[in-house]
Amino acid sequence: MRLLEERIRKDGIVKSGNVLKVDSFLNHQMDVTLFNEMGKEFKRLFADRPVNKILTIEASGIGIACIVAQHFNVPVVFAKKTQSINIDGEVYTSRIESFTHKRSYDVIVSKKYISKDDRILIIDDFLANGCAVNGLIEMIQSAGATVEGVGIAIEKGQQSGGKLLRDQGIRVASLAIIDSINDETGEIGFKEY
Amino acid sequence: MRLLEERIRKDGIVKSGNVLKVDSFLNHQMDVTLFNEMGKEFKRLFADRPVNKILTIEASGIGIACIVAQHFNVPVVFAKKTQSINIDGEVYTSRIESFTHKRSYDVIVSKKYISKDDRILIIDDFLANGCAVNGLIEMIQSAGATVEGVGIAIEKGQQSGGKLLRDQGIRVASLAIIDSINDETGEIGFKEY
Repeated sequence: MRLLEERIRKDGIVKSGNVLKVDSFLNHQMDVTLFNEMGKEFKRLFADRPVNKILTIEASGIGIACIVAQHFNVPVVFAKKTQSINIDGEVYTSRIESFTHKRSYDVIVSKKYISKDDRILIIDDFLANGCAVNGLIEMIQSAGATVEGVGIAIEKGQQSGGKLLRDQGIRVASLAIIDSINDETGEIGFKEY
Repeated sequence: MRLLEERIRKDGIVKSGNVLKVDSFLNHQMDVTLFNEMGKEFKRLFADRPVNKILTIEASGIGIACIVAQHFNVPVVFAKKTQSINIDGEVYTSRIESFTHKRSYDVIVSKKYISKDDRILIIDDFLANGCAVNGLIEMIQSAGATVEGVGIAIEKGQQSGGKLLRDQGIRVASLAIIDSINDETGEIGFKEY
């Protein structure tokens, strides 16, 4: 998606070790006008899929997922990072290894909010090694529900998460796929999506 | 807001100890159509305020804040619960005591995203003792920015957070103010907002 690629080139900050920071518009400060354009594009890309629910993971997936959900006219469920006294009854659990934070954590979704008839689009801000998305897929499969696809804002094309998902036959649409990051010049290369 | 009160009566679940669970539409599964009506109402209530940014706190405030932001045509910034390697430079920090989770935690906002010219509307899902909102206000004041108001989905009117904020002269608009919860009958009473 040209608009997102341009925004990443303009406002993304490249740090040593292939780290791309987009916290001025995507995952700390959030540009909801951009999110709305992303929502339109996800709707176009998944127009043939009978999505009835969007699943994301806290925290930075939630904003994008909510704006995207308006284009599908469906509710959003977000996987929570810790057991809360506000959730009772049974939950689906998955253990996720965070590339960004270099640690593991458990996420949960109440069983009330994924059922076998659900046809789910997963939305997240980043796809790197795919651990978060795989955790969400596991929970959807535990519920006997259907994964209609995965919509990602920024995929790190040099990492294997996207390939592994596509190899399983899952439709993954990433609006910007990073091909190369040069942390000396700050240049960012994109793949066609 | 009649629509939200009706939804709380219909889908809210009263638990012993005055706990109201609204995770089927507000803070685990999220009804973005309802959020959109809430956004219209916040825009009406704060129409005279020159809001240029919305500030919220992860995780359950983010979805509401993003949908509300579309009605103000402004970006959202969310306070993060833990120090992340994705944030560098200086941050504003505040310590928050969670009523729901019975524990304290630190939240941070990058100094890049609140500046002295900002005129900020705080949005959150719940207001009980007001600790989260007070933490956000502290950070806004540290930046020399202006608090234009506080927009809350559900205020627990029996707790003191709302009163303490209003006593400081802060405009607080809560779309549903709970006056009484009867955990034997499940009945919920509301104050006029």
